[in-house]
Amino acid sequence: MLYFIGLGLADEKDISVKGLEIVKKAERVYLEAYTAILLVEKDALESFYGRSVIIADREMVESSSDSILADADKVDVAFLVVGDPFSATTHTDLLLRARQSTPTIPVRTLPAASILTGVGCTGLSLYNFGQTVSMVFFTDNWRPMSFYDRVAENTKLGLHTLVLLDIKVKEPDLAQLARGRVVYEKPRFMSVAQCAQQLVETEEEKGQGVCGREFIAVGVARVGAEDQAIVAGTLGELSEVDMGRPLHSLVLVGSRTHDLEREFVREYAVNRETFDKAWDAQFGAAEKA
Amino acid sequence: MLYFIGLGLADEKDISVKGLEIVKKAERVYLEAYTAILLVEKDALESFYGRSVIIADREMVESSSDSILADADKVDVAFLVVGDPFSATTHTDLLLRARQSTPTIPVRTLPAASILTGVGCTGLSLYNFGQTVSMVFFTDNWRPMSFYDRVAENTKLGLHTLVLLDIKVKEPDLAQLARGRVVYEKPRFMSVAQCAQQLVETEEEKGQGVCGREFIAVGVARVGAEDQAIVAGTLGELSEVDMGRPLHSLVLVGSRTHDLEREFVREYAVNRETFDKAWDAQFGAAEKA
Repeated sequence: MLYFIGLGLADEKDISVKGLEIVKKAERVYLEAYTAILLVEKDALESFYGRSVIIADREMVESSSDSILADADKVDVAFLVVGDPFSATTHTDLLLRARQSTPTIPVRTLPAASILTGVGCTGLSLYNFGQTVSMVFFTDNWRPMSFYDRVAENTKLGLHTLVLLDIKVKEPDLAQLARGRVVYEKPRFMSVAQCAQQLVETEEEKGQGVCGREFIAVGVARVGAEDQAIVAGTLGELSEVDMGRPLHSLVLVGSRTHDLEREFVREYAVNRETFDKAWDAQFGAAEKA
Repeated sequence: MLYFIGLGLADEKDISVKGLEIVKKAERVYLEAYTAILLVEKDALESFYGRSVIIADREMVESSSDSILADADKVDVAFLVVGDPFSATTHTDLLLRARQSTPTIPVRTLPAASILTGVGCTGLSLYNFGQTVSMVFFTDNWRPMSFYDRVAENTKLGLHTLVLLDIKVKEPDLAQLARGRVVYEKPRFMSVAQCAQQLVETEEEKGQGVCGREFIAVGVARVGAEDQAIVAGTLGELSEVDMGRPLHSLVLVGSRTHDLEREFVREYAVNRETFDKAWDAQFGAAEKA
């Protein structure tokens, strides 16, 4: 059996009791480590599980899946995924390959906490979220802005948009590669500030009034961890905020909010005065009871 | 400290290791039992936790929250929620009340698996979902259809819609109530078949071409459990399907799908021939490589 086991968001103890039982008994344990990361190192996992864990990088999952699937029709293999196993389509692909193997490999999935629902910690109603988008690191010559149209669709309907932020793990250093050496860059994780800045830049280029400096957003960091942080403000304010170590995400607030959402989010405002002003300007003043 | 602890979706072992540690040590343990249910009984939880659990029904959470919050500034209280703690706004409200208590009650939330992401087991990409809606039991004189406009918004953008199905736990029997006796009805859970039927009826009344008999949908039952079930087909087909015991949910498929989603969903078709025909008619034929 091939088990896809969600690890949740923060640390080694966010795995479910059921998932832990399977990990302890499985023949091999892989950890998918390129679409998201836990807030603890591999060592912490290994000592908690009492066994060794094989890091599965993008190349292994996409090109060498045979080694992951080997014998999984006879023995148990655990494939650990940070967050919920179905957040990334890569894993859907691995699952399909297992199913189509000869002999067929039975598959089971254990859902877990995901940022897609964990973001409810902001107090924004999960019913009011539209489609989720991703923000990648802009470079001088690569500034992919296709997310903007999705955000515009959500905004037009008054819905919130969860923006998932880029992570770069095990990226080859291109300068070194040109000299024939494979050296990996230090891992990088996009911050709320950088995301806010890129949203503002995108708005300047696209100009449909979707994510300019005055728009209200909420930044979250390390959701589910003890040092979870939440900050609300305009994108201008958030582009200067320091939310500490990864992982970060951002929510663009839509207009279809009720007073309870506003009240909850306001607790996290960088500055309540500018928050109230920006909120009233964007969504209209709160109704007085 | 007041802990909101997600229990995940299926049984007593879907709680996180961290959540279980807190439950074992908390002074009092409440189980929210009206927005969703686990697939096991309270007894199973109690024997797994090794302690007693207080069922918190709607009335207790909405009107008698003082008893839940009592002393929580000094001792640990665990409030258990099936799925992820933020799926329902009722809990947001309880959280706000804790925060506004004098003295303030510190609050911590432990995210967990939710149907909002667990539904990824269908193979439909979570990035392609629009807003989530709820379907309630229609009666002769109460047929609330406001969800239809939300579905139409999603459909227009080509997005999938997750439909969460009504559950009735501890509803007073109105006929008995009229005679002055408080008797509760047997718990009821909406099935995929009934939801599909109500969608078709709503379409007949509204007529915008959003959820008629020929529309493709996917029904899921007991997501995350060993007997998890998934069935795909037209709403006409699904309105006759029996997916067994609760909980059920349904996804209306949007047009913005890629071939991998189609391939995955097709595995679950009630009838592959009618599925292919309906899919081609609704979304256009798959591109041939």
